[in-house]
Amino acid sequence: MHNTSPLSALRQWLGENHLDGMIVPRADAWQSEYCAPYDEKLAWLTGFDGSAGLALVLKDRALLFVDGRYQVQARVQVNMDEVEIHHLHNEPLADWLAHNVAPGTRIGFEALLMTNAEYAQLSATPCELVPLKASPFDTLWTDRPAAPAGAIREMPVETSGESSADKRQRVAQILAEKGADYLAITLPDNIAWLLNVRGSDIPTSPVPLSFALLSRDGGVEWFVNDNKLHALPQAVRDAFTLAPQDAFIDRCKQLSQGKRVLVDADSAPVALRFAIEPQGEIVWHTDPITLMKANKNPTELAGYRECHHQDGAAWVNFLAWLSREVPQRAEAGNPLTELEVQAQQLAFRERQPGFIEQSFATISAAMSNAAMCHYHSSDASNKPLLQDHFYLNDSGGQYQNGTTDATRTLAWGKVDPQQRLHYTAVLKGFLSLITLQFPSGTQGHQLDAFARRPLWEMGLDYDHGTGHGVGHQLLIHENPHRIAKKVNPWPLVAGNIMTIEPGYYLADSHGIRIENQVEIVESRPGFCKFASLTLIPIDLSQVELSLLNDQEKQWLDEYHQQVREAISPLVDSDARPWLFEATAPIRVNR
Amino acid sequence: MHNTSPLSALRQWLGENHLDGMIVPRADAWQSEYCAPYDEKLAWLTGFDGSAGLALVLKDRALLFVDGRYQVQARVQVNMDEVEIHHLHNEPLADWLAHNVAPGTRIGFEALLMTNAEYAQLSATPCELVPLKASPFDTLWTDRPAAPAGAIREMPVETSGESSADKRQRVAQILAEKGADYLAITLPDNIAWLLNVRGSDIPTSPVPLSFALLSRDGGVEWFVNDNKLHALPQAVRDAFTLAPQDAFIDRCKQLSQGKRVLVDADSAPVALRFAIEPQGEIVWHTDPITLMKANKNPTELAGYRECHHQDGAAWVNFLAWLSREVPQRAEAGNPLTELEVQAQQLAFRERQPGFIEQSFATISAAMSNAAMCHYHSSDASNKPLLQDHFYLNDSGGQYQNGTTDATRTLAWGKVDPQQRLHYTAVLKGFLSLITLQFPSGTQGHQLDAFARRPLWEMGLDYDHGTGHGVGHQLLIHENPHRIAKKVNPWPLVAGNIMTIEPGYYLADSHGIRIENQVEIVESRPGFCKFASLTLIPIDLSQVELSLLNDQEKQWLDEYHQQVREAISPLVDSDARPWLFEATAPIRVNR
Repeated sequence: MHNTSPLSALRQWLGENHLDGMIVPRADAWQSEYCAPYDEKLAWLTGFDGSAGLALVLKDRALLFVDGRYQVQARVQVNMDEVEIHHLHNEPLADWLAHNVAPGTRIGFEALLMTNAEYAQLSATPCELVPLKASPFDTLWTDRPAAPAGAIREMPVETSGESSADKRQRVAQILAEKGADYLAITLPDNIAWLLNVRGSDIPTSPVPLSFALLSRDGGVEWFVNDNKLHALPQAVRDAFTLAPQDAFIDRCKQLSQGKRVLVDADSAPVALRFAIEPQGEIVWHTDPITLMKANKNPTELAGYRECHHQDGAAWVNFLAWLSREVPQRAEAGNPLTELEVQAQQLAFRERQPGFIEQSFATISAAMSNAAMCHYHSSDASNKPLLQDHFYLNDSGGQYQNGTTDATRTLAWGKVDPQQRLHYTAVLKGFLSLITLQFPSGTQGHQLDAFARRPLWEMGLDYDHGTGHGVGHQLLIHENPHRIAKKVNPWPLVAGNIMTIEPGYYLADSHGIRIENQVEIVESRPGFCKFASLTLIPIDLSQVELSLLNDQEKQWLDEYHQQVREAISPLVDSDARPWLFEATAPIRVNR
Repeated sequence: MHNTSPLSALRQWLGENHLDGMIVPRADAWQSEYCAPYDEKLAWLTGFDGSAGLALVLKDRALLFVDGRYQVQARVQVNMDEVEIHHLHNEPLADWLAHNVAPGTRIGFEALLMTNAEYAQLSATPCELVPLKASPFDTLWTDRPAAPAGAIREMPVETSGESSADKRQRVAQILAEKGADYLAITLPDNIAWLLNVRGSDIPTSPVPLSFALLSRDGGVEWFVNDNKLHALPQAVRDAFTLAPQDAFIDRCKQLSQGKRVLVDADSAPVALRFAIEPQGEIVWHTDPITLMKANKNPTELAGYRECHHQDGAAWVNFLAWLSREVPQRAEAGNPLTELEVQAQQLAFRERQPGFIEQSFATISAAMSNAAMCHYHSSDASNKPLLQDHFYLNDSGGQYQNGTTDATRTLAWGKVDPQQRLHYTAVLKGFLSLITLQFPSGTQGHQLDAFARRPLWEMGLDYDHGTGHGVGHQLLIHENPHRIAKKVNPWPLVAGNIMTIEPGYYLADSHGIRIENQVEIVESRPGFCKFASLTLIPIDLSQVELSLLNDQEKQWLDEYHQQVREAISPLVDSDARPWLFEATAPIRVNR
């Protein structure tokens, strides 16, 4: 039997369907950060499995567009005889099409995988964009993984803090204010929040892949495959009108006759535009749930605080274990490795009450591996934890009552003086931002530079954001708030949950990041401050203490006292001495 | 003779011209911050003479829209029996029209006084917008001041650093890159920069009110009334094709047939759209001169540095004089007043080589008057300078080789402890920003919060921007750069000139502002810092020195040493002892 490559198979299908080409993005219908294997069409087609990119397959050429992060990886993963690599941002697909295809060239695409903004850009090119009625991958991808069918569970009101019925009334009220008849909800975490459910389609992301329609009376039609519903109490199911996931687009077409439908402007698939606009009107707007969800209620906030106690105890057990094992194993010539260590950390977390799963794939990175911000250990890359070298751990848990995310960078022994200065600068930036009082409603881009200034003073910087929202047993990167250089228009107010995580990375040498999760609280009328949720000692053994001022030392001492008091009752007895040492006041012991 | 009010006269004119109403903005054709008396139509019509606002005159109602700053002033100045006051931003004119006028209501407007964006907003209302062929003010305003006819002078290349011909070639190159045939230049400071001329139509703003067209070959048609040209050398005049100012719009209509004309998207009058669009194409874009002008050349930078020496010496003579006179006059029961003091300051400036005129109306504000950020003294408001109270002076000069802008807040004796804390916080914010090193290309909104943090820590803030560009013998508020809370997309790079001016204001009590003008310089590859142009001692007598850290004291000492060394050779001998005292190092004397 002739072994046809995916590219050849797709080209034959295109010919049979009178198309000159097709766009294949790394995307699912929800523009998810983490996709199910079922949706990794781009990886199947090209071999490239990065988290962003798209292919343009033509009769005689195939192009893969990836961003700066993935230029190297793409060249390793794809067959360069078959596929040309282009730059996703420097030479966007729309520009390439504008300069390289004849007018009228028929380019197919799946309208569920493309956002309205992406479609608008491509519409300006001379080619003819053809939305496909059927996906070629349904037939061509013969060894395709099964569609995700993760069980959906109830998120009880004792944990969510507000009934779904009450939430739906609040959203319906906003629909009324905006003169919209329906809200088409395509963001899985917004559906999870609104319906008080959690899913398991994708590891670490407890959101159900599905769609929903909310009408102005608060009623919900939920488009979700019923093989996911067996664990959901009948009473919950009865609260909604249920339909298969695939029925969503047709239903939007049917109900939008003469109606106004609010659709998320940033993430919704252009398929909704095609379905609604012929006979209805779309109100393009940020899904109002996005902002409501970001303003946590008192029950959610209490849950975050509580699960950070559990997570902090797991961290302290882990760090105490590391402090014993790293030197011993290194001395014995059999050092611990990144993979061993992250397995042990998971074991500590799994003992904690309420723990469900990790909230993202752990970054366990020793020495130069930590210079790659998004590194994940593999057998091939696995490095040892040696003395006098930094080890970076960025990990977190999904708990019944909340979600955690923290990073600590540690060393046993003493790293070189230059690296100590880098660590001290990252810590000073972290302290500068976390001690800030700011007017309620200040935006993230106004605050970002506080975390960078100590690095800027050394002529250094880091190439990622400083903080992101964290969902409540939801996504680890929750919209809409960000603290970053890039403009983010969403005002920071009491009740938001963020991370604060400056870092510094020197390629082929080392990487440093210090991250606490924080709650924004009102400090006085009109002003807010950050209150740490994270309860994990910060390694001071690599700090140039002479470079810390009194306020910085005072914050660290107070924080460590808070950690000690909160966590010491929760940790293993053999971890307690380490905790006391790690949280001892600077003024006394150092 | 019956005394007809301006409003009645305008209404009669509207009736005769088959109009239901008219929009009268506080604007000239250049959207100038400071208007000539000739252009103060709104003040003549309503009595309101603030710097922003507009009137809608209907047959039976007249509405004045002013922003928050002017709600009180407008109610004092207008006849409330005739005119209703509305809020310019909370209830914009377009919203009011949408809800209050019948479809087809004919509203006249002058297309030279309205920007394209303003027109676009009003176009969405049901009324019919009628661009007027002739301005009613030409006939109705019988005692109208003469049109500005300020003489235009050459800005020699020795001072501007680049010939007009070279500048025009650089701009023409950008036109070619953008595929535009012409640049329609409506911003007076951009014309002044491009043609190497300065004007005198409006006091403190040495820009010629005129228009210009640059073609892709670098040729310029300059639409300027020839009664302004008598002081301009023939060779300069011969470099351009001259035409009367009024011929500009018709010429745009004529030359745009089948052509692409670049028009400033933010400030150009909608009259240009009406003139060009029927037969040509407008490329809406920020006038490229705006950015070229903001990146000063070495000659301009040297000029700024030099004129700040002259201005610094005038300040020091003035401050030494104040230090003698304030206590003496207060003791004698005949205290100095704001108006006396600003006249004396002007006298000191007028003695300096190269001084032309003030660069803006001086703010000379004692005690509670300083709480009004945009205060200007009058006989009615004139307050005494008393001991133990703050006095704020914000002033600057237009010099042959540059423009200055600085603020100092001073007191003789000792102000109350709370006010000392406010002064110390403003100083700390000033120091935090001015000592910053930042990556080249950072934007103003990313840096603004450094200047506010010490106030934020006290639960305080100030309601204005932190820094603005300053022209080179041009406008005191030069676009496009700003340091402010509001997003400003223009990257800060070496060669930009800015102010740094945090403040604090407590209504009915006191106002504080400390302002240096700075040059942005490269500090190391990829990074910039601020270098002070301003050379004026900062009053440390009201600072709580215990709240300053070592770096802050060090910067002040080094700055004062720089001021002393630069300025002491230039000041009157009787001012020198004061200068030495005012610039003495903190560690030694205080």
